[in-house]
Amino acid sequence: MPLHVTPTQKETISPQAAEFLSAAESIPIEAINSVTLTRQVFQAAETAVEESLIERFRLEIRDITMGDVPVLVIRPSSSDLRHQARVVFDIHGGGFVMGTARERTALMMAGELGLTVYSVNYSLSPEVKYPIAIEQCLAVYREMVTKFGAKNIVGVSSSAGGQIMFSTIVRAQREGFQLPAALAFYTPNVDLSGAGDSNVFNNDRDTISNEVMVEAMNTLYAGGVDLKDELLSPIYVRLDGPLPPTIINTGTRDLLLSQCVRLYWKLRDAGGKTELLVSEGMWHGFNWELELPEAIRARKAVYTFIRNILDEIHVS
Amino acid sequence: MPLHVTPTQKETISPQAAEFLSAAESIPIEAINSVTLTRQVFQAAETAVEESLIERFRLEIRDITMGDVPVLVIRPSSSDLRHQARVVFDIHGGGFVMGTARERTALMMAGELGLTVYSVNYSLSPEVKYPIAIEQCLAVYREMVTKFGAKNIVGVSSSAGGQIMFSTIVRAQREGFQLPAALAFYTPNVDLSGAGDSNVFNNDRDTISNEVMVEAMNTLYAGGVDLKDELLSPIYVRLDGPLPPTIINTGTRDLLLSQCVRLYWKLRDAGGKTELLVSEGMWHGFNWELELPEAIRARKAVYTFIRNILDEIHVS
Repeated sequence: MPLHVTPTQKETISPQAAEFLSAAESIPIEAINSVTLTRQVFQAAETAVEESLIERFRLEIRDITMGDVPVLVIRPSSSDLRHQARVVFDIHGGGFVMGTARERTALMMAGELGLTVYSVNYSLSPEVKYPIAIEQCLAVYREMVTKFGAKNIVGVSSSAGGQIMFSTIVRAQREGFQLPAALAFYTPNVDLSGAGDSNVFNNDRDTISNEVMVEAMNTLYAGGVDLKDELLSPIYVRLDGPLPPTIINTGTRDLLLSQCVRLYWKLRDAGGKTELLVSEGMWHGFNWELELPEAIRARKAVYTFIRNILDEIHVS
Repeated sequence: MPLHVTPTQKETISPQAAEFLSAAESIPIEAINSVTLTRQVFQAAETAVEESLIERFRLEIRDITMGDVPVLVIRPSSSDLRHQARVVFDIHGGGFVMGTARERTALMMAGELGLTVYSVNYSLSPEVKYPIAIEQCLAVYREMVTKFGAKNIVGVSSSAGGQIMFSTIVRAQREGFQLPAALAFYTPNVDLSGAGDSNVFNNDRDTISNEVMVEAMNTLYAGGVDLKDELLSPIYVRLDGPLPPTIINTGTRDLLLSQCVRLYWKLRDAGGKTELLVSEGMWHGFNWELELPEAIRARKAVYTFIRNILDEIHVS
């Protein structure tokens, strides 16, 4: 079903955004029953984009293993000297069922922010179920802490990767590990149950629908676990203390806007420095668009947040 | 028309909020044609609430005149000693057509934040038109700057008062006046034209509809001025420099969510320290509810923001 944008809605977004929305369609429910095909279609579109980003930013890509988990190391051609010791720990999105470590956010982080990115190639569903991806990312995080020191790590995640990141960090906190210097969440999915205000009002306004999201979680990822389990849907998790400074990026058209809003208050109430970025008329994953004015502005705000945190640590 | 709340929307808001929404109705278009009656009905409901707040917080109320404009001085029974020199400059909401200086936000500011509030009884529409209210508030602000010093003033406004405040501050900036120490906007109306994403998706979900808002602006307030005039709808204003540190409070159900989002980016892009508070499932003016958990949390966040700014100024 195509998305709808009224003339008065077009007035407050960029022409590029209006064009994107007018051409966009919601992912059909059938995608859940044909995961192999869905992955192929998705990857066919992404491969060319990824390669253009690698070329544009002259990135150096290398496959390694950390904690027995495949990780992609993405190194920028030039790096901010003050921050050469700092690295990004990236967990990609894709509804737990698709996407790879060589994804746009990881590539743009390396290219635009200028830090080396360690992007996890965690195992996808339905081949593996919850909590395998979290355990893999925790294994990578543990090894990154040993190698780089927690205060040199910035955790970045998108969509489903946001659930993995949040639960990984809570697990790390419970195990007594030092936490990263900062966290950045792009339109994160931290409540897989489908509860929330925007899950209703953005249901037919975004590229993902609430039905597809909840059905995919139940059928492909959760493996029978209650969708409100505290580490499956970490918006419900008990926090033992503040998380690192965190920035959360979303838009008014994001199906997951309410989750971002609730995550903001949860982290703030737990005592952590938290910033919420909401962009007018923007959809789930809009930050993925390299040239979209709203996406450029949102990514810059995320980079500013990260740089400020790293600068503070550097000074002290 | 009653508002609608689904079971999955109720899961992420307080029971009190769900109860409020289930009982709430949207303001009918007829209200615009019967302003006198609308004011009477509104004030009949408000008077008791206002008196209970005055009693609860043991507030001392006094009518004065500043710059030939009637102002209500609301003094708290006890005040934070460090901040006794600081005062609030409050501009109430009510769609430019109703409400008075003795309004809930002004009373709660005095009672909960502990600062003396100067709340402007500006002239209402349709008796007077744009830009009379702005000129009255500017006259009050000028006198407050002389009396207290700009750095001791915190500007607070709600809904339509947000338009008056924003345009007043821009006018003050253009006239070379020093700006307040901080600004707080509660669900502000800074685009009277009806443009924006939430003006569509929250149109039948909030206590005000976009049709009523735009029609009221055209018929009662604007006096024939283009609704996108830069001081009538100050989201379109050219800014000559950063505004003071500003916090903006809204909710996912607020008809004016998009305006708050756009105001955030406008002030941020102009170089000002800006914070956006979005509360899950909350409507236009939800912060007015004394006992609502979401409102208490949002007001506390606003007070924290103001106190931090004032403390910084105090130290330097």
